[in-house]
Amino acid sequence: MWSKIKRILIGRPLKSNELQEQKLNKLKALAILSSDALSSVAYGPEQILIVLAAVSIAAFWYSLPIAVGVLVLLTALILSYRQIIQAYPHGGGAYMVAKENLGMNFGLIAGGSLLIDYILTVAVSVSAGTDAITSAFPLLHPYNVGIAVVLVAIITILNLRGLTESATVLAYPVYLFVLALGVLIIAGLFQVLTGHAPATAHTAIGTPVMGVGLFLLLKAFSSGCSALTGVEAISNAIPNFKDPAPKNAAATLVMMGSILALLFSGIVFLAYWYGIAPSAKETVLSHLGSLIFGRNIFYYFIQATTALILVLAANTGFSAFPLLAFNLAKDKFMPRPFTVRGDRLGYSNGIITLGVASIFLIVIFQGNTENLIPLYAVGVFIPFSLSQTGMIIKWIRERPKGWIPKLLANLAGALICYLILIIFFITKFQHVWFSIIFIPLVIFVFHKIHKHYLAVGDQLRVDLSNKLKDVDVADNVIIVPVAGVTQVVKQSLIYARSLSDNVIAVFVGSSEEAIDRMEEQWEQWDTDIRLVTLHSLYRSVLTPLSKFIDTVLYKTEKSGTTVTVVMPQFYTKKWWQSLLHNQSGVIIRAYLVRTKNIVIATVPYRFKK
Amino acid sequence: MWSKIKRILIGRPLKSNELQEQKLNKLKALAILSSDALSSVAYGPEQILIVLAAVSIAAFWYSLPIAVGVLVLLTALILSYRQIIQAYPHGGGAYMVAKENLGMNFGLIAGGSLLIDYILTVAVSVSAGTDAITSAFPLLHPYNVGIAVVLVAIITILNLRGLTESATVLAYPVYLFVLALGVLIIAGLFQVLTGHAPATAHTAIGTPVMGVGLFLLLKAFSSGCSALTGVEAISNAIPNFKDPAPKNAAATLVMMGSILALLFSGIVFLAYWYGIAPSAKETVLSHLGSLIFGRNIFYYFIQATTALILVLAANTGFSAFPLLAFNLAKDKFMPRPFTVRGDRLGYSNGIITLGVASIFLIVIFQGNTENLIPLYAVGVFIPFSLSQTGMIIKWIRERPKGWIPKLLANLAGALICYLILIIFFITKFQHVWFSIIFIPLVIFVFHKIHKHYLAVGDQLRVDLSNKLKDVDVADNVIIVPVAGVTQVVKQSLIYARSLSDNVIAVFVGSSEEAIDRMEEQWEQWDTDIRLVTLHSLYRSVLTPLSKFIDTVLYKTEKSGTTVTVVMPQFYTKKWWQSLLHNQSGVIIRAYLVRTKNIVIATVPYRFKK
Repeated sequence: MWSKIKRILIGRPLKSNELQEQKLNKLKALAILSSDALSSVAYGPEQILIVLAAVSIAAFWYSLPIAVGVLVLLTALILSYRQIIQAYPHGGGAYMVAKENLGMNFGLIAGGSLLIDYILTVAVSVSAGTDAITSAFPLLHPYNVGIAVVLVAIITILNLRGLTESATVLAYPVYLFVLALGVLIIAGLFQVLTGHAPATAHTAIGTPVMGVGLFLLLKAFSSGCSALTGVEAISNAIPNFKDPAPKNAAATLVMMGSILALLFSGIVFLAYWYGIAPSAKETVLSHLGSLIFGRNIFYYFIQATTALILVLAANTGFSAFPLLAFNLAKDKFMPRPFTVRGDRLGYSNGIITLGVASIFLIVIFQGNTENLIPLYAVGVFIPFSLSQTGMIIKWIRERPKGWIPKLLANLAGALICYLILIIFFITKFQHVWFSIIFIPLVIFVFHKIHKHYLAVGDQLRVDLSNKLKDVDVADNVIIVPVAGVTQVVKQSLIYARSLSDNVIAVFVGSSEEAIDRMEEQWEQWDTDIRLVTLHSLYRSVLTPLSKFIDTVLYKTEKSGTTVTVVMPQFYTKKWWQSLLHNQSGVIIRAYLVRTKNIVIATVPYRFKK
Repeated sequence: MWSKIKRILIGRPLKSNELQEQKLNKLKALAILSSDALSSVAYGPEQILIVLAAVSIAAFWYSLPIAVGVLVLLTALILSYRQIIQAYPHGGGAYMVAKENLGMNFGLIAGGSLLIDYILTVAVSVSAGTDAITSAFPLLHPYNVGIAVVLVAIITILNLRGLTESATVLAYPVYLFVLALGVLIIAGLFQVLTGHAPATAHTAIGTPVMGVGLFLLLKAFSSGCSALTGVEAISNAIPNFKDPAPKNAAATLVMMGSILALLFSGIVFLAYWYGIAPSAKETVLSHLGSLIFGRNIFYYFIQATTALILVLAANTGFSAFPLLAFNLAKDKFMPRPFTVRGDRLGYSNGIITLGVASIFLIVIFQGNTENLIPLYAVGVFIPFSLSQTGMIIKWIRERPKGWIPKLLANLAGALICYLILIIFFITKFQHVWFSIIFIPLVIFVFHKIHKHYLAVGDQLRVDLSNKLKDVDVADNVIIVPVAGVTQVVKQSLIYARSLSDNVIAVFVGSSEEAIDRMEEQWEQWDTDIRLVTLHSLYRSVLTPLSKFIDTVLYKTEKSGTTVTVVMPQFYTKKWWQSLLHNQSGVIIRAYLVRTKNIVIATVPYRFKK
């Protein structure tokens, strides 16, 4: 039943040797790897406006200088990630770079915050995608959370099926999104230049506004930085590029950075010019689209591609999280099940964990992107900072040819990242304090797990030079609890006798009469097996049996004899019949094997009618 | 943890020989056995008024002739139950009487409807008791269902503790209830006679009312019969009486019948005189009490004793249901667990089943007695009719001295009972159709269970004359699935070798390299055990292992060799560590023992750190 449902949802199992990798050319790589970064423009500009709107609509002009700051930061990041691409041609995730250059603990900090981050990627992107849908269809607005949860569930199932198969399909939405936003921006600029856009909707640049101080501007700037999430994706995926992989990857990174810069600045400028104020029910992008085009077919095209690219961005979390979890599990910092490939060769446990965790976040935060984004951005900038720092250490240690400019690029990147982190913690403490508690907790758990696996490894290790065939054959005692003289008991006794000459049958009776009757029957049956009878005052079988086993264990302790308890397990012909039989055997078996140093042999007995 | 909670709620376990019985004198027996019958006056008169109120308040005078009808019926029942008491001095429940005289199927009909009936006794009595409480404290009215559920839970726990211990305590509420209602009726009559009661509140007897036809009157009459539920209790409990038990029981029955008749007619008359109309928020008894006394201390005393006796009535269900279930289970018509005495010597499974089922009914019917009572009354009159019929057959068959008057008493009882049943099905079909479906269903299930137990008995029977020691010792093959060379594997192999010379180790690898590595290590280890390696294309261990076992089973099928699979079970030192280990062993073990004819030996391996 369950396995049929699984087949329909997930598809037939794949053989291990069906695992293949496809190499990507630059244009395709750009599409597949940049959905996370490019989709950020769907919520980044809005985050700036939300902060400014808290003061006054007149303050919106500040979004322009703030956007310039974000662009400077973007340039620095692109330059420093180019260095990482050159230095780690096999893929330089923050976990790898930090682990190698700063030591395991910094690697774990990067790994831990990235894991959380991928969960947030999914939650934020899907929530923002849902916002795009419900902006276009306001009637759906009350069902935001439900829609987002269903979307995550669909993405999870697609990933369990193995989404990489159809990677080519995933490229189109990104092209369409860039096209849609490009047309939107050009059309908007055209309207502005031809004077069709209302010049009265916005205050002039430089208008002084009461209440705008450094704190507010920094806060707005750090909010805008959420538009930069996802730029690291290319540096993690270099092995997927066609040769020469690092060069192609670096070129793709620059291409992506340029597109991101154009889209981001275009949207910020138009939002300013059209005087768009953020609203809970409509996204800035939707508002802009409807002002420039009206709610015509092109408006819906923009919303559709926006929703699609955001869902794709969530999907990048589904490629990255299971892989990182695999790497951490391989290094024994996460549970081993994360290393196991599922039926369709994906790391199913990682995929399912990510799906469940992000649904949990969406429900907890009620799909409210505004509250998730600060946490998300902090989670992104911690590994950013650590990998830049790692690169600095690397250049100083190795000093390859021309290392000074490389060092300077990463130094600039690192300094800016740390600055952003500080700004985050100062201006948005109420949103991000959680990571101060949670990341150390994750590191602590990583170490706990690691210690356990090392201890297990120690305990399980076998010295192969001690030949197994030289180990003496041990003695055996077999205990068979009997409830009467039945076919089941007969079967168990015959089995026990085939294993050992030392078999004891044990009968627990709740009255003297029951015991006498049993002894009489036993006599009559004429077995060659000793019967021990125990009187249970409290009608419990387990307690006297358990005490008897303890006595046997105590007597055989020194001789190294293994004690085996043979117990039947009934299988009735129809499921409801099993309700008619005391399943106390199951409880007794579970209790004995858990608490005593004995082997339990379960002998199935199948009723024929 | 669970066992500690159980100790606190249920008390220490009792030894089997602590089971004792107390014999009752007449007065005490009256109190203990009549709570069910006497408490019926708390809802019986109200049921008549509810039917009449559907026409008009003017129709209330009809309650008087209807009450006379109920009293006639009561007399007939008391007379015929006296016969049963004489004929079955060891307790003549309807199940016994019907089984013995009418055959097993009629016994099962009686037993089945009684079982359902006891559940309804609990649900109706507790709901009515809750009504008494919330009539006194109207603020509690919205919490009716919650209060009723908590009351049932408390009664269930008290019965699991073994309530019979404190039976003397249970007598007082009945005396107090009779006292309270006696004073109420006398005070009411005094007010009526002294002219203090408003003579204008009621229409004169004989006033013609539009819309009152035979159907309505029969319906009201059958509703009033609900006041007779519980009169059979004494005839079931004769062995509990002091000698001469049947004589004492018969006398007690007459006493109970007289008290019931007095209370019932008094309440019906006063309700008529005071012109009380039934209401959802206040019971008729509460309304009457507040009119006669005002809401003073005596009013609250009446409500309190009413609530108490209703809870006691529910408690009689808790004595009767488990005993009947025990008898049915002993006759193999109900699951055997109903024959097992719990820690406190009560039949815990019966007690728990009754508690859960009545809570279920209360919740489904939202504690609404009006909808439960018709079902309850039908359930009572079916076994009434069957036991009277059984007695008729008995007298005709045995023809003891003076059998004709006995026969006539039971004949009258039977005819009236059948008549009531017919009236029920005609006038209240929409309430009672359910029992037409449900009772046959219960009988069907009884037979299904019976057939299964007979079949099991056949299959398990052992011919003791075939001496066990003459059975040949069988051969053994031991299969040990190994995941690598570890201490766990070593322990399993040493154990396997101690059981048999025929041990096969099986390794399932998901790649050629893994298999090669394993074979190399095995060589190096120098075991005297054969290693079989299997290649798993789909990364599943279960499928290849299962196929391999099938092959072994096929080869050994004819020789009668038993196949044993030895599998380790890990126990980590701390609970959370168990999450770090694939528990696939548990699944594989469960699957293999369920589907294949093999023995599974579970070898515990305990991590020390």
